[in-house]
Amino acid sequence: MGVSWIGVVGGAGVLALLFAFVATGKINAFKVENDRINELSGIIQKGAMAFLYREYKALVPFVLLVAALLAFKINVPNAVCFVSGALCSALTGYVGMRVATKSNGKTAYGASQGMNSALRIAFTGGSVMGMTVVGVGILGIVGMYVLYGDANVIASFGFGASSIALFARVGGGIYTKAADVGADLVGKVEAGIPEDDPRNPAVIADNVGDNVGDIAGMGADLFESYVNSIIAAMAVGALLFGVAGVAYPLFLAAIGIVASILGTFFVRVKEGGDPQFALRMGLISTGLFMILGAFFVTRWIFDDLTLFWAVVGGVASGVIIGYITEIYTSSSYGSVKEIANASNTGAATNILAGIGVGMKSTGWPVLFICAATLVGVHFGGLYGIACAAVGMLAITGMALSVDAYGPIADNAGGIAEMSGLPHEVRNITDKLDAVGNTTAAIGKGLAIGSAALTALALFVAYAQAVKLDTIDLKDPKVMVGLFIGGLLPFLFSALSIQAVGRAAQKMIDEVRRQFREIPGIMEGTGKPEYERCVDISTAAALREMVIPGLMAVVVPVVVGLILGAEALGGLLGGSIVTGVMMAIFMANAGGAWDNAKKYIEEGHHGGKGTPAHAAAVVGDTVGDPFKDTAGPSLNILIKLMSVVALVLAPLFS
Amino acid sequence: MGVSWIGVVGGAGVLALLFAFVATGKINAFKVENDRINELSGIIQKGAMAFLYREYKALVPFVLLVAALLAFKINVPNAVCFVSGALCSALTGYVGMRVATKSNGKTAYGASQGMNSALRIAFTGGSVMGMTVVGVGILGIVGMYVLYGDANVIASFGFGASSIALFARVGGGIYTKAADVGADLVGKVEAGIPEDDPRNPAVIADNVGDNVGDIAGMGADLFESYVNSIIAAMAVGALLFGVAGVAYPLFLAAIGIVASILGTFFVRVKEGGDPQFALRMGLISTGLFMILGAFFVTRWIFDDLTLFWAVVGGVASGVIIGYITEIYTSSSYGSVKEIANASNTGAATNILAGIGVGMKSTGWPVLFICAATLVGVHFGGLYGIACAAVGMLAITGMALSVDAYGPIADNAGGIAEMSGLPHEVRNITDKLDAVGNTTAAIGKGLAIGSAALTALALFVAYAQAVKLDTIDLKDPKVMVGLFIGGLLPFLFSALSIQAVGRAAQKMIDEVRRQFREIPGIMEGTGKPEYERCVDISTAAALREMVIPGLMAVVVPVVVGLILGAEALGGLLGGSIVTGVMMAIFMANAGGAWDNAKKYIEEGHHGGKGTPAHAAAVVGDTVGDPFKDTAGPSLNILIKLMSVVALVLAPLFS
Repeated sequence: MGVSWIGVVGGAGVLALLFAFVATGKINAFKVENDRINELSGIIQKGAMAFLYREYKALVPFVLLVAALLAFKINVPNAVCFVSGALCSALTGYVGMRVATKSNGKTAYGASQGMNSALRIAFTGGSVMGMTVVGVGILGIVGMYVLYGDANVIASFGFGASSIALFARVGGGIYTKAADVGADLVGKVEAGIPEDDPRNPAVIADNVGDNVGDIAGMGADLFESYVNSIIAAMAVGALLFGVAGVAYPLFLAAIGIVASILGTFFVRVKEGGDPQFALRMGLISTGLFMILGAFFVTRWIFDDLTLFWAVVGGVASGVIIGYITEIYTSSSYGSVKEIANASNTGAATNILAGIGVGMKSTGWPVLFICAATLVGVHFGGLYGIACAAVGMLAITGMALSVDAYGPIADNAGGIAEMSGLPHEVRNITDKLDAVGNTTAAIGKGLAIGSAALTALALFVAYAQAVKLDTIDLKDPKVMVGLFIGGLLPFLFSALSIQAVGRAAQKMIDEVRRQFREIPGIMEGTGKPEYERCVDISTAAALREMVIPGLMAVVVPVVVGLILGAEALGGLLGGSIVTGVMMAIFMANAGGAWDNAKKYIEEGHHGGKGTPAHAAAVVGDTVGDPFKDTAGPSLNILIKLMSVVALVLAPLFS
Repeated sequence: MGVSWIGVVGGAGVLALLFAFVATGKINAFKVENDRINELSGIIQKGAMAFLYREYKALVPFVLLVAALLAFKINVPNAVCFVSGALCSALTGYVGMRVATKSNGKTAYGASQGMNSALRIAFTGGSVMGMTVVGVGILGIVGMYVLYGDANVIASFGFGASSIALFARVGGGIYTKAADVGADLVGKVEAGIPEDDPRNPAVIADNVGDNVGDIAGMGADLFESYVNSIIAAMAVGALLFGVAGVAYPLFLAAIGIVASILGTFFVRVKEGGDPQFALRMGLISTGLFMILGAFFVTRWIFDDLTLFWAVVGGVASGVIIGYITEIYTSSSYGSVKEIANASNTGAATNILAGIGVGMKSTGWPVLFICAATLVGVHFGGLYGIACAAVGMLAITGMALSVDAYGPIADNAGGIAEMSGLPHEVRNITDKLDAVGNTTAAIGKGLAIGSAALTALALFVAYAQAVKLDTIDLKDPKVMVGLFIGGLLPFLFSALSIQAVGRAAQKMIDEVRRQFREIPGIMEGTGKPEYERCVDISTAAALREMVIPGLMAVVVPVVVGLILGAEALGGLLGGSIVTGVMMAIFMANAGGAWDNAKKYIEEGHHGGKGTPAHAAAVVGDTVGDPFKDTAGPSLNILIKLMSVVALVLAPLFS
C-alpha cells in the first residue's frame, strides 16, 4: 500500500464535509415567513451560542495547561495533537449547534406545511451534525498521522477530544436538566401551565438547554467515541500489522462515511407514511452497506476474511444492544408498563420499580459486550476487539444524524407552542419527537457498547505502551487500583447528580420568585425575565463541570505515579466495569421513567392529573439527570481515563 | 506448638456459649406480669419461629443437593463440612431469634420500671446472639479442623454458612420490608393511624419481620463473615507458615471472644446516664482489649510483631469506616440535613439528594479498605490482608451484641404501643432505639469493610488453590469474567428490590382490603386478620429468595467450567468491586433517607404533616429495601461466590 491510501481516506472525510455543506445550504434556502418563530429561534440560538462561547472560553486555560505539560513532560507533537483534538471537538460542537438551532424554527414552520417537510428539515439538520463529526474526525486523524506517523502520538488527539467532550457533556447536562427540572416542577406542577408555555420564566433556558445538552454535548460525545475507537485500533494494529494495521480502521471509517451518505437516500417518507420506518430504513441500509464494504476492504488489505467477522460481531452487537435498550425503555414492552403500574401505589414504588428495571437492564447489554469481545478476540486477537469497536462506530455519520434529529424535532415543538402555531402543527412535531425517542434508543445502545469496546481497546493499547507483561489481579496493588477505578464512576455520578440538584433548586427558587413578583405574568401581560434563568443554568454548568472533569484527568495520573503502571491498569479495568454498569443502569432507568410518565399521560391508569401521574412525574424528574447528565458522561469518563493513561504511558513505564 | 492449642481455642468457644447460656438464664428469670405483653410477645415469637421453620425446611433440598454434588465431585469431607456449616448457621439463627423474641416483651415491661432495666435486658438479649455466633463459629471450625486438618476442606464449612446466610438475608429482607412498606403506606399514610397501631392488619407481620430480618438475617450474615474471614486466613496461612499460620487467626478469634466478654462489663448506665455512652464504652474497651491481646499472641506465635500491625490496620480501618458511615447517615452531620432540605422541593429532589449522598459516601470507606489492604500487604503479604479481616471481625461478639440490641429495643417499642403501655414507656424504648441506630452504624461499617477484606482473602486463597500464577487483566477472558462478575451485584440488587416491590404491592392491596371490608376495624371493635399479612410476607420471602440465591452459586460454577479458572478469578474481582460499591451506596443512602425523615419529624422544615415530610417518607420507603434487603445481601454475595470458587477449585484447575 502506497501513501495514496491516505488520500482515499482523507477523500472520504472531505466527502462528508461536502455533504454537510450542501445540507446546510438546503436548510439556509428554506425561508420562514413568521416573525414570532424567527424571533424565538433567534433568542434560543443566541442563548445557546453564548453558552458555547463561555464554555469554550472557560476551557482555554485547561487546554493550554495540559498542552504545556504534555510538551514539557512528553513531547511537542503530543501537545500539538492534544490542542488539535480539542479544537476539532469544539469546531464540530459549534457547527452542529449553529445548524441545529437554525433548523428548529424551520422545522416548526415546515410542520405547518405537513409531516414530510418537517421531517426533511429536521433530519437534514441532524445530518449536518453527523457528517461534520465524522468528516472532521477522520480528517483530523489523517492530518495528525501525515504529520507524525505514530498512532501513540495521535492518541493525544483523542485525549483532546475526550477532555472537551467530558466538559461539554457534564456542563451541557447540568445546564439542560437544571432548566428542565425548574421549568417542569414550578411551571407545570405548581402553576399548572403547559410544557413550553411562554409565560414560564425558565422556558427559554429549557429550550437552550436541549441544544446545549443534546446537540453540542452529544456531538462532542460521539466525536470522541469515533476518533478514540479509530485511534485505539491504529495503536494496537501498528504493532501487529504495521501500516496495514493502521490503515484498516481508517478504511473502515471511510466506508462508514460512504455507507452513511448512501443511507440518507433511504430516509424518505411518502405523504401519510411512517417517519419511524424511514429513519429505521436509513439505519439498516447504512449498516448493510457498511458490512458489504467491510467485506471487500478486509479481503483487499489482508487477503483474508477473519477480521471481517470481528467487525460484523461489533456491528451486530451494537444493533442488538440498541434493540435491548428499546425493550427496557419503550412503553410497548413490559418493563415500562410495570413502572407505570407501580405508580398506582405512589412515588416510592414508582422509584423502586424504575431502579429495579434500570439495574436489571444491565444484564443482556453486558453479555453482548462480552460476546463482541470474545468474537473479536477469536477472529482477531486484541486487535479484533478494537476493530469490533470501529465497526460499531463507523456508521456514526448516520447514527448521529438520527440522534440529532430528535432534539431538533423536540425544540421545534417548543417553538411551535411558544409562537402559538395551530394545534395540528404541535401534533406533527410531537409525532416526530416520539419517533426520535425510539430510534435514539439504538443510538444509545451503540454509544454504550462502543464505549465499552473502545475503552477495552485503549486499555490494551496502554498495556502495550507501558510494556506490561501482565496486569495481575493477584497483585494487591492492582486490586487497589481496581477498587479506586471502580469508585470513580460512583463519585463522578454523585457529583453530577448533586450539581443538577443544587442548580435545579436555585432555578426553582428563581421561577417561584418571578411568578410571585412580576405583575401580570400569568395573564401574559407581564414579561418573564428569561435571561435570569439562562444565567443560572450557565453559571451552574460552568462552575459544576470543573471538579468531575478534573477528577477524570488527575486521578489516573496520581495513581500511575504513586502506585505504578500495574495499579493504573487495574484502575482502568475497574472504571470500565463499574462505568459501563452505571451508564446502562442510569440511561435505561431514566428512559423507562420518562416513557412510563408518557404512557400514563396517554390515558392509562387514569391519565394526567391522577396520583399515579404525579408519582410518574417524580420518577421522570429523578431520571432526568440519570439519563442526560450522569449516564452519558460515564461513557466519556471511562475512555478519557484510558486515553490519559495511554498518552502518559511514558511517565509510568 | 502442640495439639493443646486447639484446646485453648476451643475453650474460648465454650466460654462464649457459657456466657450466652448464663445470659439466657438471666432473661428467663425476668418475669413479665402483663398479660397483653405476654400475649403479643407470644404471637410475634410464634410468627417468627414459624417463618424460620418454613425457611429452613425450604432449604433442606438445596443443602442436600449441594452436599451430594460435593460428595460426588469433590469428596465426602467437603460435604460433611458444608452440611455442618449450614446446620451451625441455622442453629445460631434459631437461638438468637428465640432469645430475641423473648427479650422484646421483657424489654417493654422493663422500660416501665426505668431506662436502666430496659437497657440491661435488651443488651443481654443481643449478647446471647453475639456470643452464640462466635461460640458456635469457632467450635465449628475447630471441630472440622480436628476432623480433617485441612483449611481448604474447611472452606466448605464457610460455604454452608454463606449459603444459609444469603437465603436468610434475602428472605428475611423481603419479609420485613414487604410488611414494613405495606404497614406504613396504608396504615400511617392513608389511614392516618400511628406506627405499631394494633388496628393495622400488617402490624404483626411488621414486628415479626423485624426479628426475621434484623435478628435472624443479621445473625446469619455475621456468622458467615466471621467464619469465612477465619477460614480464608487459615487457608492462606497454611501455605505460608504451616500450623502457625492456621493457629494464628484462631487465636485472634479466641482473644476477640475474651475481649468481648470483658467488654460487656463496661456496658453499664447509671440512673439518668447516657445509654449511647455505655454501648460505645463496651465497643471501645473490647477493641482495646483485642489489640492488647493481639500484641501478645503475635509475639508469642511468630516471635515478631510485623503481623500485629496488619491486624491493627484491620481493626482501625473497620472502626474508621464505621464512623464515616455515621457521618453520612446521622442527622448530626451535613449530608442528612441536605436531604432533609431537598425535601422542601418535593420527592424528586429528596430522592436525587439521597442517591447523591449514597454514591458519594462510597469514597472514603473504599479508600480505607484500600488502606487496610496495603497496610496488610506491607506487613504480612497476602496473609496480612486475611489477618486484617480477622482483626476487624474478631470483636464480632461485642459488635453483634450491640447490633442485635437495636431491633430488640425497636420491637419493645412496638409491643409497648400495641399493649397500650403509658407514653413514658414508649419514650424510653424510642430513646433506646435511637441509640441503637447510631451504634449500629459502626456495626455496618465493620460488616462492609470486613466483607471486602474477607472476599479479597478468599480470592487469594482461590488463586492459590487453582495454582494460577497470574490472573491477567490483559487476557480478554479475564476481562469478560470481570464484566460478568461486575454485573452480578446489579442483577442481584434488581431482583431483590423488585421482589420487595411486588410483595409490598400485594401487602398494600391486602391491608386496603381489610380496612375496607372488616367492619369496625378503625374503631377497634373489629379484629384485623393479622395472619393473612404474615402469610403474604412469608410466601413472598420463600418464593423470591430462590433465584437470587441460586444465581450466586450457579454463575461462578458455569463461568469456571466454560471460560476457565482465570476468567472465574476475573469474575470474583469484578463482583467484589461492584459489590462493595453497591453495598455501601445502598446501605448509606437508605440510612440517610431514614434519618432525614426522622430529622423532619423532630420538627425541622415544618415537621410531620408537611409536604416536606411527605417527600421524606418517599425517600425512606425507597431506602428500606436498599438498606435492609439488597445492600446487606451484597456483603454475603461476594463472599459466597468467592468461597464457592475456593471449594470447587479442584473442578477448574
